[in-house]
Amino acid sequence: MRFEQITIVGVGLIGGSVGLAAKARAVAARVVGVDPNPANLSAALSRGALDAGTPDLAEGVRGSALVVICTPVDRVAPVIRAALPHVGPSALFTDAGSTKARILADLGPDAEQLPYVPAHPLAGSEKSGPEHARPDLFEGRPTVLVVGTFGANWERAVTVGRFWEALGSRAVLMSAEEHDRVLAVTSHLPHAVASAVAGVTHEDWLRVSAGGFRDVTRVAAGDPDLWAAIFLSNRAPVLAAVDSFTARLAAFRALLEAGDRAGLVEWLREGKQVRDALGT
Amino acid sequence: MRFEQITIVGVGLIGGSVGLAAKARAVAARVVGVDPNPANLSAALSRGALDAGTPDLAEGVRGSALVVICTPVDRVAPVIRAALPHVGPSALFTDAGSTKARILADLGPDAEQLPYVPAHPLAGSEKSGPEHARPDLFEGRPTVLVVGTFGANWERAVTVGRFWEALGSRAVLMSAEEHDRVLAVTSHLPHAVASAVAGVTHEDWLRVSAGGFRDVTRVAAGDPDLWAAIFLSNRAPVLAAVDSFTARLAAFRALLEAGDRAGLVEWLREGKQVRDALGT
Repeated sequence: MRFEQITIVGVGLIGGSVGLAAKARAVAARVVGVDPNPANLSAALSRGALDAGTPDLAEGVRGSALVVICTPVDRVAPVIRAALPHVGPSALFTDAGSTKARILADLGPDAEQLPYVPAHPLAGSEKSGPEHARPDLFEGRPTVLVVGTFGANWERAVTVGRFWEALGSRAVLMSAEEHDRVLAVTSHLPHAVASAVAGVTHEDWLRVSAGGFRDVTRVAAGDPDLWAAIFLSNRAPVLAAVDSFTARLAAFRALLEAGDRAGLVEWLREGKQVRDALGT
Repeated sequence: MRFEQITIVGVGLIGGSVGLAAKARAVAARVVGVDPNPANLSAALSRGALDAGTPDLAEGVRGSALVVICTPVDRVAPVIRAALPHVGPSALFTDAGSTKARILADLGPDAEQLPYVPAHPLAGSEKSGPEHARPDLFEGRPTVLVVGTFGANWERAVTVGRFWEALGSRAVLMSAEEHDRVLAVTSHLPHAVASAVAGVTHEDWLRVSAGGFRDVTRVAAGDPDLWAAIFLSNRAPVLAAVDSFTARLAAFRALLEAGDRAGLVEWLREGKQVRDALGT
């Protein structure tokens, strides 16, 4: 798998890492970056993640066989619509957005006819910006590919899937709805919960905290604007995940208030079983 | 600071690490371990955390200048009471229990007259057992020392504080009530929340999870029996922490349901500010 030229739109942590991985693994001969922020472009250029950068979308996508959109999730559909007139007839689009159904809804009823294969590499960091980009960010990580109806789209999905695999990740196929429902629990809920724990902690208590607090709250350092966009783009599944979590924590509270030791042990054991299945 | 002999009661992760640190830093010439489980004793002996081990408390504490109790939190008071007749007149007790007020209540109204300086080293792991013990477990970590009224207890507190500092930690003085209220938020709440997140996650969703889920749920792998004991020994402060957390998550839910982007950003920013103050 080798592209003559790809374009990355949105050169932050993820976009910068796509560039670094594509260069390091010779997936693209030339990588062009598009970003409204000149500081992002120059940081990515100086780190070798890009060969060229421009704030102009039309100019940036011209001549590219693949456009990888790594903007905040609510910008993906508008960027595809705006870029479409400026790419060649065989160009493909993919993205790294954290939710999928909303992007497809925003694209409208002909979304499945567009040369777009929605993707979500499950990689990231509480840090943001191209200065934290890493060529190995996707290594061994799953990348969800949304493939609705097959047929005409099958070849596109294979090409885009091979691209994400060439960056080091492994492809997992799901529907947009399944992706969003599962990620609401495995990603969006943990983020909300981490932020809520941090939010009820006085800063002068931090000196009496240990590794557990550090781990549980780590993602709360993430970018508030990015995460607000993610939550809003996956509203119903996140609300359902919060409700299910709240009911489970209420069960804990009732057991604790009743002083039910056996019940608490069993409640903790159920969580431990899931966590142990994940490994360290 | 050098003791001729110390005794560690309860030779698990913490007790084993106390032994390894005491030997590595020459804090004790001889370390005796007491544990009802022979496997714990032989694992700790073979790792060099102990010089001798016995299941017999009276035999194990005889001749020791310091007894460090690293049992589950609900065993600390009974162990002190049972060991007292078998130690010399100048022997001191300390412990590593995760909550403090309940231990003092269990000891009864004369708790302050006992040669016991309650301690809580804020170090640990989701792993348990002496096979995971580490000589550097306490390095750079705070150890809370509970010092109620000073006066006669001041010298004891200094000796025990210097012991924990000699293992590599730094002493922080608090009252038992303040300790329990703060730890309910910085340690017990995060544990309950981590377990609740894991508990609402189907195991077959784990393949689509990333570092955020891994971090948030890590402590949920901890020992259910140990943690049930911790929660029960700090019931009222943990219930209050759960309520305050639940209210904060409910605010998130309301903002999300209302589609209030600015409100969500502000809510996330408040959590981020606390987490950023902690550092990575």
